[in-house]
Order: sequence, then C-alpha cells, then structure tokens
Amino acid sequence: MARIRSSVFREKVTTADEAVRHIHAGDTVAISGFASAGTPKVIIPALAERIHHARGAGVNFTINLLTGASVSTETERTLAEIDGIALRMPYQSEATARRKINEGRMDYVDIHLSHVAQQVWEGYYGTVDVAVVEVAGVTEAGELIPSASVGNNKTWLDVAKKVILEVNSWVPDAMTGIHDIYYGTALPPNRTPLEITSAADRIGQTTFRVDPDKVVAVVETNCPDSASPLTEPDAVSIAIAGHVLDFFDHEVKAGRLPADSLLPLQAGIGNVANAVLGGLDRGGYRDLTCYSEVIQDSMLRLIKDGAVAHASATSLALSEKGLEEFTSNVDFYRNHITLRPQEISNHPEVVRRLGIIAMNGMLEADIYGNVNSTHVMGTKIMNGIGGSGDFTRNGYVSMFLSPSTARGGAISSIVPMVPHVDHTEHDTQVIVTEQGLADLRGLSPRRRARAVIDNCAHPEFRPLLHDYLARADAQPGAGHTPHLLGEAFSFHQRHLATGSMQR
Amino acid sequence: MARIRSSVFREKVTTADEAVRHIHAGDTVAISGFASAGTPKVIIPALAERIHHARGAGVNFTINLLTGASVSTETERTLAEIDGIALRMPYQSEATARRKINEGRMDYVDIHLSHVAQQVWEGYYGTVDVAVVEVAGVTEAGELIPSASVGNNKTWLDVAKKVILEVNSWVPDAMTGIHDIYYGTALPPNRTPLEITSAADRIGQTTFRVDPDKVVAVVETNCPDSASPLTEPDAVSIAIAGHVLDFFDHEVKAGRLPADSLLPLQAGIGNVANAVLGGLDRGGYRDLTCYSEVIQDSMLRLIKDGAVAHASATSLALSEKGLEEFTSNVDFYRNHITLRPQEISNHPEVVRRLGIIAMNGMLEADIYGNVNSTHVMGTKIMNGIGGSGDFTRNGYVSMFLSPSTARGGAISSIVPMVPHVDHTEHDTQVIVTEQGLADLRGLSPRRRARAVIDNCAHPEFRPLLHDYLARADAQPGAGHTPHLLGEAFSFHQRHLATGSMQR
Repeated sequence: MARIRSSVFREKVTTADEAVRHIHAGDTVAISGFASAGTPKVIIPALAERIHHARGAGVNFTINLLTGASVSTETERTLAEIDGIALRMPYQSEATARRKINEGRMDYVDIHLSHVAQQVWEGYYGTVDVAVVEVAGVTEAGELIPSASVGNNKTWLDVAKKVILEVNSWVPDAMTGIHDIYYGTALPPNRTPLEITSAADRIGQTTFRVDPDKVVAVVETNCPDSASPLTEPDAVSIAIAGHVLDFFDHEVKAGRLPADSLLPLQAGIGNVANAVLGGLDRGGYRDLTCYSEVIQDSMLRLIKDGAVAHASATSLALSEKGLEEFTSNVDFYRNHITLRPQEISNHPEVVRRLGIIAMNGMLEADIYGNVNSTHVMGTKIMNGIGGSGDFTRNGYVSMFLSPSTARGGAISSIVPMVPHVDHTEHDTQVIVTEQGLADLRGLSPRRRARAVIDNCAHPEFRPLLHDYLARADAQPGAGHTPHLLGEAFSFHQRHLATGSMQR
Repeated sequence: MARIRSSVFREKVTTADEAVRHIHAGDTVAISGFASAGTPKVIIPALAERIHHARGAGVNFTINLLTGASVSTETERTLAEIDGIALRMPYQSEATARRKINEGRMDYVDIHLSHVAQQVWEGYYGTVDVAVVEVAGVTEAGELIPSASVGNNKTWLDVAKKVILEVNSWVPDAMTGIHDIYYGTALPPNRTPLEITSAADRIGQTTFRVDPDKVVAVVETNCPDSASPLTEPDAVSIAIAGHVLDFFDHEVKAGRLPADSLLPLQAGIGNVANAVLGGLDRGGYRDLTCYSEVIQDSMLRLIKDGAVAHASATSLALSEKGLEEFTSNVDFYRNHITLRPQEISNHPEVVRRLGIIAMNGMLEADIYGNVNSTHVMGTKIMNGIGGSGDFTRNGYVSMFLSPSTARGGAISSIVPMVPHVDHTEHDTQVIVTEQGLADLRGLSPRRRARAVIDNCAHPEFRPLLHDYLARADAQPGAGHTPHLLGEAFSFHQRHLATGSMQR
C-alpha cells in the first residue's frame, strides 16, 4: 500500500471483482488509456467476467465505453469479443472491435480528440456513471498521481458519478512531476485563455483532484503497460522522411521557418512518423520542440542527443525497448517531457498559437488534396480520425504522409476522389509519399491535381490519374474542380471487384 | 479634404487614374471589402481601364487579387470581364467571376477566412505588391479610420510594399470608434493569447496604422456602399427558424445552454440566417450576444429591441433599408457593435472559447452529415467556404440550415453522398431543413443516416434515400458507413442527365 498515502483511499482498497460490482448494465463507463499507455489493467477483465456471467443469467449487459484514444489491445478485445460495448467513443485500433463496428454490431462515434472532454462535459453523451482510471499513486492529501498517459482522465474524474481507481506500482515513482494537469477549463461563457506560449510551459498541477466520496473502490496492481509495436524504418519510410527534411530546409531558406528550431513538431503515431522524427537527427537542428499527442521511441533519442529540448504530449507510446529506456532514465526525461490532458495537447487554441508543423498519416488522398484517414474503400472504419484534424486545421504547415501504394502495389494512396473525407482541400497543405512532395499552398484545384499526381502518385498509377483528370477537364462545364461522377470511385470499385486498383 | 487631417497624407491626394499607375502587370493586389461593404469604389474601375488599355497595346496584364471576402458585385465583375484576374483568393460571389473560375480561366483558392491573414503574412502567397484600402478618414497622427468593413485591411496595410488609400466621406464620421483593430498578432513562435472572453471585449485600437512612406496615393471619394440584397423571410425560412428556436428551448431545458442569453450566436449570410435571427425576438431572450462575420438587417432590430446586447463582426452586410437605419442611428449602434479584423472575428481560439452557436447555410448534406457548401454537383464552385469552417469546427453547437429542396423540388439538399466535402461528419452536429431538425451529436453513422433522412429530407426523396441506405447496409461487409460506390452520386448523375434528382 506504499503508493496509497491517504488513509481515506487505503480504506477503499478491494479486489477487482468487488470493484466491478459498481458497474451496471447500460452504464456509461469512461476509462483511462491513450495509445495503450495507462489503460486499467485488471478492472476491465473483471468487468468482462461480470458481463459474461450476467449474459449466462439471461441479462443483456452492455456498457458505453469512453476512453482517451486507443486502449490496450487486450482490453479492447476482451470487451468486444463478448459484445460488451454498445457505444464506443472516440478512437479504437483493435481488430475485434473494428470488426464488430464494421458489422454494425457496435456503435462507434468518431470525433476529434480535442473535442471529447468538452462534449462529454457539455452533456452530449449523457451521464458518465463510472470512471475507471489508472494512477501511479495517491498523495497524503488524496490527490492522484497520473500514470503513463493523461488522456481525458481529468474530465472523467470530474464528471463521473462513481470512480474506481487502479493504483499501479509498476509506474516509476520518479514520473511524479512530469504531468501538467490544467484545472482552468470551464464551460462557456466562463472560459479564459490557455496561457501556453511554448511547448514546455506549465499551466497546471502535477496531480488529479478527485472527490473522495465518489471513489467507490481502489484496486492495487503492478502491471507493465503494453508496448507499442514498432519496426525499424524501411526504405519507403526513410524516403518519405527525406522529402520532409528537404522541405524543412527549403522553408528555412525561404524565410518561412526559423532556422535552428523550426516550429513545434507534431507527428502522428506509427512507423512513418517515427522515421521522420528519427531523421531530424541528421538535420543539425538544436532546441527543437514537439507539441504532439504521443512520445515515440525516436523522440527519446532526439531528447538524449539534444536535438529536441522539450516534448509535450498526452501519452507515452513506446516499444518494449523504449519503455525500458524511459523507465531507466526517467529522472532525465522528466525535465524534457510534459504530459497534459488531451484537450490541451490537441487544443486548437494552442496548436494555432504555437504554429505547429503537423505531420499525420493517411489512408489515401485524392488529386485535389482531400484526405481519407479513416474508411477503407469508403465504408470500413480503420481506427478513427484521432487528433489529426486538431493539428491539421490549425497548424502552421499541415502535411500528410503515406507510402504511395499499399498491398504490394495493388492499392494507390492517390485516387481520383476519396470516398470518405476526413480532411478537406481547405486544410491539406502538403502531401508526401516516397515518390516526392506536393506543396499545395496557394494552388487552385487543377494545379493541385497536377502537383499531387506528378509528385506523389506511384508511376504505375500516374497515367490512369492523368487520364481521369484530362477527361474530367475536357467535359463541357468542367467546373472549378473537374470530376467524372460516374468514374470518381473507379479505382475503389476496381479494387473491390478484382483485388487491385491497377488496370 | 476635411477627412484627411494629416498633411503628409493630404500631399498624396491624387486621381484614381494617377493612383493606378502604381499597379503593374503581374502584381499581387490586396484590396479592402467584405460582404461588399468597404470595397474601394474608384480605384478598381480605373485599374480595369488601365488593364484594358494595356491589352490594347499588346501587354498581357493580369493581377492576383486578394480580398477580405466578397467585394462589391461591380468591382468583381469589372475585373473578371476583362480577364484581369490571374489568381483570386479567398471568396467571391459574383456571376462573371464564378463563370471564369468554372471555365478554368481564373485560378481560385478557397480557404478558411480566418486563415487568410496569417497565410499571407507567412508568405504563402508571395509578396503583396499593392494594398488598396478604403478608409473613412486619416487622423492628425496619420492613422486610418476604418470604413464599413475591416476584413484583412490591417494585414494588407502591414505587408504590402505600396499602399493606395480611398478616403470615402460617405462613411458616417460617427462610425469612428466602432472598430477594434488588434495589433498583438505575430508569427509563431511569438504569438500570445487573444484576451477576448466575451463578444463586447475590446483588445485593440480604433484605427489602422500605416507606414506613410508606403502610401503612394490617396484618392477622395463620396460613394455609398452597395446594399446587400435581402428579401422578406418566406415560409420555408420561417419554418427552419422555428425548428432552430425549438432546439434552443430544448437545449436550455436540458441544461446545455444558459437560459436567458444562450451563448454567442454566429449566423452565415443570407435569408435563412436573417430569418433565424429575426425569430429570436419571439424567444423572450435578453442580453444575447453575437460573434459573427457580418451584421445583417435583423441584427439591427434585435439590438434596438434589446434582445441583443452586443454584436461583434468584421463587416456590415445591410440592405438599403438597413444602411439607412444604421447611418441614421450610428451613435446608438456604435455602442452595441464592434467590427474587428476577420482573423479575430473568425479566430478558432475565440470561437472555441466563447462557445459559439454556429449556424451556416449549405448546398447539400449527405445522410451521414458530411456537408457540401461550395461545389454544385461536385464540380462547379458557388462562392467559397467563407468562415463556415472556422465556426463549425470550433463552435459549441454546429448547425447547418437549408431548405430541403431547390429548383422547385428538382434538387434534394439531402443526398446519399456529397460529391464535395467542406465540413466532415466529425464537425456537423445538427442539420435543419423546413422539414425538421436532426441532432447528430453522439450518433454512429447508421443512426445519423436515419435521423437525417427522417427529419430533414423532403418526403418526396425519403423513399429513395432509405432504399439507398438499406441496400448499402445489406451488402456483405457493409462497414461502419455503408455506401454503394457505384450509386453514391446517383442523385447528381440523374440531375445532370434529366435536370431533376427525382426518379
């Protein structure tokens, strides 16, 4: 009980099985977890067991599940497998849950990550019955020391009627102080400016507050976070990173980016982002900053090398090796990393003010720069929009990165028209594939199309795309943004019919 | 010369014909004007004359034209008719310009109005050679009193290499003081919070600054602004307004909106918005505020009646009657209206902080809530996205309003899939037609579709839409957002073939 320094909380210590008796059929349950870090480790398996038993007794037991973003794979799968989730919000990335959503058996609402906390607080998702939050400890004063992700935990603890805590002693004690929990948010008309003007600024406190009367159970654990899978950068990722780094050089020479430190970087989760960040080492930059969602492995090295002075995020997203590096040197990293609530890490006000360089992955872009981040072939959800919209809309430069093809060349990431739009032509400024970079700033649609096809599409698909554009443009009354409505999805229809977008 | 109180500026007074000699072929010219108010009155016709003559002499004379938003119809047409515009940014609403753009003879870049000033300052549109700005006067100290719109004038005066002023003595002297020109903007990494926490807050000064050495010409005029066309609300607009007002009541009862004053209102330009605002009179509200782009006629009445305590905007957009009412009572209105730069009136930071209720028109929405604001049949530009994205993305509640049909019932504003997306499913929360209101907050795609079809589509089109949804959903592997890619644009294709979306 060393991590529970308040006697009020010590008295509430119980087992996971006892704790989940406070969760009832139909409840809205808001849990911790972002990019798998900080997911509760034992309550959800116990809840799944409870749901399974209730089902056996003929009770239809489902919950609405709210999280920060993705939770650990096991957690998501455990609940999805037993059809335990009626409504899921705001982001998921696990195969079973994805399948249930795509079968129409689980409701899923896909919203910008910066919008989650405010919309729940505003009452758009009804009452939050129970919050289940992993913490690293409880202070003498009864405040909570956050664990490896912050996500929406501040809001869950504020709005939930009942709170269940998991106190995980695996989280290094020395992480205490890395968090910046802001208590100045309010509902309109009572909101005030967020006083953040650089990535390292602190505007909050290091702990969460919670009304102890709401805490119905405290469960002790000692479980490591799941590691985020990460592979070494391949040739395609390295080529994409090269184009991005060349672009930075070009922008610095043009006087549009500060030479030494650029502007704060944001990079989505995944191997391409990891490769871009990894490549910054070679750029000779010093005192870079990051204002992003997650800390990936490459960030730790950049911090260690002195290329990055400070990184702000809402969560760690480290591989097994990264977790080891972080926990072994947490005293060092604590001074160079700040973990914030996701409504602050992704806040449009701060993103715009800092002038973020936004770099996000995508499924596909169309020739005019509309981006599909979420729906395979326009219908099947992949993971969700995450924070890509928060950063893209408000960033100083907004870039989308992707290999030019997928599935061994069968799928082109550049298509005539995307069948689902997550980021519009008004927001996409730069598209990068291993083929090259299309700078769309200041270009009208026809010019954008030529830049995207010639610079980003795989050579295999360029003739098809040029042919589409030329025939669309040749129509009488072709318009500002030429399209052939009958053929706009021909790439996707061909893929559905033959398994390949190639002719 | 009574309006020009600085001798430095008096010495620069000249004719329009002389002034336009400072504008050269290939120049980027940034002019005042938003919703037609504050457009320069005599320089552009003189420039058109100059271009015409140059053409006669075999010189290919075009300019890149940057504005606040729409400028007066005559101004836009005059330049478009002679093919004088190579690139147009960011918004237009005039028939000749629209035709040239849709014929691919004029480049047009359609960006969020809150992004214009920063992107030009950041250098994304190259050098601004000449600014042409209408003002109401010049102070003894050489500062400029703004006229009936602010738009991007502060930025144009800052960044342009040369400045031409039109001093228009038609603008009432008593308008002085209605403007709030903020000089605290900066490029990142030097940005600081915008200290606006309510619609009436003032954070700037009442005048523009300009380096007198850059001012190459001052031209005196006495010309009224063009009036914005406005018709009396028809039955459809009144029905839409009724649904919106019922929704406000419902939200107040649910505790999601403050009872007396709601939250600051934003309404797009046009008759539907005007009808909604007009209807607020009957709601019994007091001390409402507006934080919007324009002041329409209905706003003046609401202010006079005491329903609206303060309205913030970047421009007037009044009918002839409204202009008369405003100019006759400007001493009264000056205390209840603030005109700001459009980067502030539309700023995501302020829109989110204040918790704006965003109400914008649209061309069409699809069953999942994606909205097309700009492209007729997906290809032909109408006007541009304007500020709708600034308010929709960041508002407290984001609503789109439209009649359910157009062209006497031939066109449905609810379609299976929109062929151009300006606002994604992640951003659209409420859709309203005269048929009813669909509240999409917290709903997964299938539920959204049923709500939109049943509440918003015209009964004539409901069976077709339900049939589409049912068949899409019945496909094996229908996915999260069911669609039939081969039929997604069947409504539009039918209209292109037969002139009607009806079967």
